[in-house]
Amino acid sequence: MDKFLQAAIEEAKKGLKEGGIPIGSVLVIDGKIVGRGHNRRVQDSSAILHAEMDCLENAGRMAASEYKKAILYSTLSPCSMCSGAALLYKIPKIIIGENRTFKGPEEYVRSCGVEVEILDNQECFDMMQSFIQKNPQLWNEDIGE
Amino acid sequence: MDKFLQAAIEEAKKGLKEGGIPIGSVLVIDGKIVGRGHNRRVQDSSAILHAEMDCLENAGRMAASEYKKAILYSTLSPCSMCSGAALLYKIPKIIIGENRTFKGPEEYVRSCGVEVEILDNQECFDMMQSFIQKNPQLWNEDIGE
Repeated sequence: MDKFLQAAIEEAKKGLKEGGIPIGSVLVIDGKIVGRGHNRRVQDSSAILHAEMDCLENAGRMAASEYKKAILYSTLSPCSMCSGAALLYKIPKIIIGENRTFKGPEEYVRSCGVEVEILDNQECFDMMQSFIQKNPQLWNEDIGE
Repeated sequence: MDKFLQAAIEEAKKGLKEGGIPIGSVLVIDGKIVGRGHNRRVQDSSAILHAEMDCLENAGRMAASEYKKAILYSTLSPCSMCSGAALLYKIPKIIIGENRTFKGPEEYVRSCGVEVEILDNQECFDMMQSFIQKNPQLWNEDIGE
C-alpha cells in the first residue's frame, strides 16, 4: 500500500484511540512527510480541526513555493473547508483514501486545476462505517448535517 | 455603521495591536455575537487561523441548526478556506467589509446558495492597505502567494 496513505491511516487510528473521529491526513513534500494530523473535534472540542486542517497546522507556516510541491493525503474525501485550504495554498495534488462515506467538492477542486486521486481503500471505508454506526450524531455534526 | 461589522473591525484592530494581520470576524445568530476572532498567523504561528476560522473555532461546537441561522461577518473577503468553512456548515449569509484588497471565491459561494453582501467599508480597506505596504511578504504568505 502507498506508505503515505498508511501514515494517514495511522493518524486516523490515533484519533480513534483518543475517542475521536477516525480521519487522518499527512502532507508530503519531495517524498517526505512534513505534517501529520487527525480530526480533533472531540479531543479539542474543535469546530475547525478536521484531519487536513490539523495536518496543515502541524506542518507550520510555509512559503508558497513549498505548498506548490506538496501532496495532501487524507483517509476521507476533504470537505469544503479542507478542500478550500488546499486551494488557498495551491497544493497541486490531493490523494484520498475513500469517498464512498463522504464526498467533498472534488469536481470543483479539479476544475481549479488540482489533481484529485481516489484510492478507494477498504480499510479507510471500514473504519468510518464502523465509527458512524456507533456515533451517527457526532459524524453529522462534523459534516454540518 | 453596522454594529457587527464594527465588532469585526475591533477584532482586526486587536490583531494589529498584537503584531498580527488586521482581519477580524464575528459570527452572529439571532442578532447576537456568538463568536469573535482575528487572524493569528503571527501570534500563534498558525497556517489555518484566518480571522473567520478563529471566529468559528471560538464559537465552539454547534449543531447544524444553529449554523443555519448564522451570519458570518469578515472585514475582508473570505479566502477559499474560510469560504469553504462557511459552506461546510451551511452558513446562509456572509457580510464582507471589503473585497478590493483581496477577493475570495465569492461567485462560487453564491452559486452554492449563500448570500454574499459587500459593504465596501473604507476603514477595512485602509487598515489592510496600510498593513500590506509595511508587510508585503507576510500578507503574501497569508494568501498563499
